Amino acid sequence: MVITKEIKLTTRGPGDIIDITGEVQQAVSGSNLTSGAVTVFVPGSTGGITTIEYEPGLLKDLPEFWEKLIPSDRSYHHDETWHDGNGFSHLRAALVGPDITVPFVDGQLTLGTWQQIVFLEFDNKGRNRRIVVQIIGE
Amino acid sequence: MVITKEIKLTTRGPGDIIDITGEVQQAVSGSNLTSGAVTVFVPGSTGGITTIEYEPGLLKDLPEFWEKLIPSDRSYHHDETWHDGNGFSHLRAALVGPDITVPFVDGQLTLGTWQQIVFLEFDNKGRNRRIVVQIIGE
Amino acid sequence: MVITKEIKLTTRGPGDIIDITGEVQQAVSGSNLTSGAVTVFVPGSTGGITTIEYEPGLLKDLPEFWEKLIPSDRSYHHDETWHDGNGFSHLRAALVGPDITVPFVDGQLTLGTWQQIVFLEFDNKGRNRRIVVQIIGE
Repeated sequence: MVITKEIKLTTRGPGDIIDITGEVQQAVSGSNLTSGAVTVFVPGSTGGITTIEYEPGLLKDLPEFWEKLIPSDRSYHHDETWHDGNGFSHLRAALVGPDITVPFVDGQLTLGTWQQIVFLEFDNKGRNRRIVVQIIGE
Repeated sequence: MVITKEIKLTTRGPGDIIDITGEVQQAVSGSNLTSGAVTVFVPGSTGGITTIEYEPGLLKDLPEFWEKLIPSDRSYHHDETWHDGNGFSHLRAALVGPDITVPFVDGQLTLGTWQQIVFLEFDNKGRNRRIVVQIIGE
Repeated sequence: MVITKEIKLTTRGPGDIIDITGEVQQAVSGSNLTSGAVTVFVPGSTGGITTIEYEPGLLKDLPEFWEKLIPSDRSYHHDETWHDGNGFSHLRAALVGPDITVPFVDGQLTLGTWQQIVFLEFDNKGRNRRIVVQIIGE
């Protein structure tokens, strides 16, 4: 059985990290499916999905890491195409990827206690985001 | 219901980035399934799958980024084992990962408008590649 | 049909890389399902799942790469929260991601010949790990 839902978010800009675990668990619970897998997917090429321990320190560490790895103040060929200044956003997003698949059992996501599903905003401005949450199970 | 298909590619060498969105969408359309998820997977440890906006600037930015992060002209322990000079390829591939899962609804991939599914050739020479496209849905 | 199993591991510490391909293939074979996808997922935010060619050279290259990219001897904001000294572990894990999905056909994983599914221990000490292996297919 396949059930597809959506999460809507408004982000504040680059480096914003949104905990969507509650919404994903709610979608699983609302599906009345017992076991299966949920795929969380961001349509768009300047956002990413992963899991982290959602605590204030890492919410600073991650943006600092991205700035060091793929600086936002450098020039990228992408910007020659579109002049929208978000070449860095595309590179970061390609690296993290737009999807995650999490198994659930007895209606509960099999996450660790200190593990949250997060949306990473990589674009250079705040955006309205739509996240696809698809549940396949029985 | 599970349907498994294959995409065959010939790549030109390291840094080659192939847009396979059309083939993946065609596999979904040909399956006559309405909703579900498609998993795109590369058998092999020197290629990767992700999504990007497929435009000429990023096709230069990504290879430049890889060269900076994991240079191809450095020596790796892997090369001591096999002497095939593609240690850098394996590291890049391990980081990006060989798989992506994309939900589809009403027979359409839930990709963003400027988001394409791509195969990243990391190996140090052109290769014939086989990509597995598996559709699970109803 | 959905079948969920577990793999239990004991790791030796940061940089440990465990080949779990045999256990994943065994789970698929034991399911008696012919075709479908297996999702391998690590509950916890200091481990990762990817594929590599499991050979001694890369088992040295990968830890060296991580030390260069996200050094373990630097100070991270995460450590200000918990003082457990594993900020670097969380960053590495967020980058690799906790999941992989591999299609199987005729009861066999569609891996390449030199491609193994691995668990990457990123934490700063050895751990007992539980890996979820979920098979969806027919």
